[in-house]
Amino acid sequence: MRTLHHVWFSAACRMLRLGLAEKGLDFATRVERIWEQRDAFLALNPAGEVPVLIEPDGTTLTEAWVITEYLEEVYPDPGLLGADPVSRAETRRLMIWFAGRFAAEVTHNLVGQKIVSRFVHDLHPSAGAIRAGREAVGYHLDYIDYLAEQRRWLAGDALSWADLAAGAELSLLDYAGEVPWDGHPEARTWYARLKSRPSFRPLLEEEIPGIRPAPHYADPDF
Amino acid sequence: MRTLHHVWFSAACRMLRLGLAEKGLDFATRVERIWEQRDAFLALNPAGEVPVLIEPDGTTLTEAWVITEYLEEVYPDPGLLGADPVSRAETRRLMIWFAGRFAAEVTHNLVGQKIVSRFVHDLHPSAGAIRAGREAVGYHLDYIDYLAEQRRWLAGDALSWADLAAGAELSLLDYAGEVPWDGHPEARTWYARLKSRPSFRPLLEEEIPGIRPAPHYADPDF
Repeated sequence: MRTLHHVWFSAACRMLRLGLAEKGLDFATRVERIWEQRDAFLALNPAGEVPVLIEPDGTTLTEAWVITEYLEEVYPDPGLLGADPVSRAETRRLMIWFAGRFAAEVTHNLVGQKIVSRFVHDLHPSAGAIRAGREAVGYHLDYIDYLAEQRRWLAGDALSWADLAAGAELSLLDYAGEVPWDGHPEARTWYARLKSRPSFRPLLEEEIPGIRPAPHYADPDF
Repeated sequence: MRTLHHVWFSAACRMLRLGLAEKGLDFATRVERIWEQRDAFLALNPAGEVPVLIEPDGTTLTEAWVITEYLEEVYPDPGLLGADPVSRAETRRLMIWFAGRFAAEVTHNLVGQKIVSRFVHDLHPSAGAIRAGREAVGYHLDYIDYLAEQRRWLAGDALSWADLAAGAELSLLDYAGEVPWDGHPEARTWYARLKSRPSFRPLLEEEIPGIRPAPHYADPDF
């Protein structure tokens, strides 16, 4: 059986759960409390980080970027990168934008402070981080509005890893009630379409221990 | 003509210069003083970052990872990722290791303080960063020793982007005289082999304005 070692509040892990489901690949998930640094897990990934994907043949893969490229190569249908090199470059550019810049400016500040800090105790809640995250989220939603206005999906006409990367970040922010949807109609329509896909359902049904999701979190018509 | 917008002290740009040369692709380089935030350059890449590669057909590519994957897809021969999905996963894992962890723990601390701060004036030299970088470099060289002991090149039997990513970081550190080669014979032998390749020569001949390279920087038998 394929196993994904993940933790609830990792957007990279959520992106892979979405991608595996979109590709119709069966997998079991195993929550790894990375802050406990279990020896058995460090043996699997000395870096001590999730995601870690163990393929049915025993191949062990670490790093979200490595895993998405591996899945595209080994399970190309349906493709989630794009139909040609230029489209794939645009998908990868947006994956970096959301998993890199969006995550650093928004998700780490808001989800890090409101959720991750409940588990990782050397991460102390900071009002400054929350303020910075709330300032940045609007600008990033404007950019999603801009993309969604011109394209059916964020990187083009087809669903891609760019949608899954952005959706994974937003799903965590939305869980924390930190997405100001009002004033971002295009982003909201795009996210509603993404959220209604079967691949998204397990994320919407997941409860992070001890933390209640925002009331509209699982509602497809939010 | 293909043009790479780069800056001297960017390891990502150096990695691409090596990869383009290894693939036998002609290209012009243009130094971009990114801290000046030129409008014409921001129009090319709103993120204001190098590398930016402009292909002969006008395709504009940003982000080193996006560019390496694009080059592999469009110019597959010689391949620099590996022969099969598992080998390519290992190459990509090591690219992330060197461009991510190694860069953050070593290059940013040492090259950032000793070279980048001469140009980017809001970056103030810090003795703490230099100390942290000098502490981390030995552990990273041990890891290169370990890889080079078992493999001809870092990711396997063939030269790959992993060697170019690691070599790009080390070339900047070596320019700054910050690589403690003694006690790291395997890493030294691997780097000497990489350094003697024609693709490396332009980096060895380059002088960063106002900063002299360490005496052995361009010496293949250092």
